Amino acid sequence: MGIRWVGFDGDDTLWKSEDYYRQAEHDFEAILAGYIDLADRRMQQHLLDTERRNLKVFGYGVKGMTLSMLETAIQLTDERISARDLHRVLEIGRATLQHPVDLLPGIREAVEAIARDHEIVLITKGDLFHQEAKIAQSGLADLFHRIEVVSEKDVSTYTRVLQELEVAPARFAMIGNSLRSDIEPVIQLGGWGIHMPYHVTWALEAEHGLGAEVPNLVTVAAAVELPAALAGIEARAG
Amino acid sequence: MGIRWVGFDGDDTLWKSEDYYRQAEHDFEAILAGYIDLADRRMQQHLLDTERRNLKVFGYGVKGMTLSMLETAIQLTDERISARDLHRVLEIGRATLQHPVDLLPGIREAVEAIARDHEIVLITKGDLFHQEAKIAQSGLADLFHRIEVVSEKDVSTYTRVLQELEVAPARFAMIGNSLRSDIEPVIQLGGWGIHMPYHVTWALEAEHGLGAEVPNLVTVAAAVELPAALAGIEARAG
Repeated sequence: MGIRWVGFDGDDTLWKSEDYYRQAEHDFEAILAGYIDLADRRMQQHLLDTERRNLKVFGYGVKGMTLSMLETAIQLTDERISARDLHRVLEIGRATLQHPVDLLPGIREAVEAIARDHEIVLITKGDLFHQEAKIAQSGLADLFHRIEVVSEKDVSTYTRVLQELEVAPARFAMIGNSLRSDIEPVIQLGGWGIHMPYHVTWALEAEHGLGAEVPNLVTVAAAVELPAALAGIEARAG
Repeated sequence: MGIRWVGFDGDDTLWKSEDYYRQAEHDFEAILAGYIDLADRRMQQHLLDTERRNLKVFGYGVKGMTLSMLETAIQLTDERISARDLHRVLEIGRATLQHPVDLLPGIREAVEAIARDHEIVLITKGDLFHQEAKIAQSGLADLFHRIEVVSEKDVSTYTRVLQELEVAPARFAMIGNSLRSDIEPVIQLGGWGIHMPYHVTWALEAEHGLGAEVPNLVTVAAAVELPAALAGIEARAG
């Protein structure tokens, strides 16, 4: 029987994403540098703390990030920041929402190769509107048999999605750059993971509970290795 | 055969929503009143224009509204507004995201009655994270056989959803307060609409192209009338 459905993550698996968030952070710090001393490290920690707290209210995505940046800028400057500079922070958010969708090297060919023998589903987390815009711009939408934009990638989300796909976890493999969101919950359910690390990882995505030895996990260095990695899993999935 | 699947809208059909947006607008104007003359009507028009323009970038929902309010406040005050007052605008957004979920009168009983004889699906538009939070708080989630949070409610969205439900439009009826989002596209596809107007409608939702006489449309004044309205449609759907 082997693997029936293969899931792909979107951000930093199919297309560049974290780089644009890093650029936003960089531009944000350049604005704040006019008001506070960035060398004391309070700022980075405060931004991360605000983001983490605001995730519960705003969810993932650029709009939540922008609201967090605005709040952080106001608090860290003790309300001294000008409306003009807050407008520049707003424009960072707008630019991040409208960044171009650049596919990662070799990913189109890998998706096409895997789609020849499997049903494939895109499972991506974040803001519905922004994710849909990126999917449309990627030019990959038609390759997928199913697209799921979800608010959180945890065991309960994967349980629901696999039920809707009518596939047993042992017949499902997930490909993604985040051990926390793409791999760990699928492995916990009894599925398979193919980890394709990206060169940068958001601090909040770096937290996961996987040990050093995970039998159902394969790691690849680039998209060109994905079909072979999946074939290796197929052989073991029986 | 009759109607197989019945769709329900969320905001202002199952629970109060627009009232909270109106409250936010009211609070926002109170802040701006410290800077500009609200009597000249520029402000309301500017906010609506900004929202409409930003919908293409931000999509629907409270986070997009909050970013629009911040941008409007900065522009209308010629960047004179203080960081403290912009923080108050941010807090309006946070409060709107965290408003309680109040079911409309009789809606739980109507949903339960209709679910006894039909498959029911919740089709709701807006921010994924906020909608999921409201669905969870509504206590109605378990009654629905399927839940779809979508970024736009147009003919192509309903086409995709009905295909996934494997139901012909003639066997589908949609219940909602917005002629534009809940009724018009379903009627265009050949489905049935039950319009349950809410006491306030967002200006951008008031735009629709339905004529005065629409054979597949029934209007009700309150949730208690929904099961009978659906029964009337059943008789005509054959």
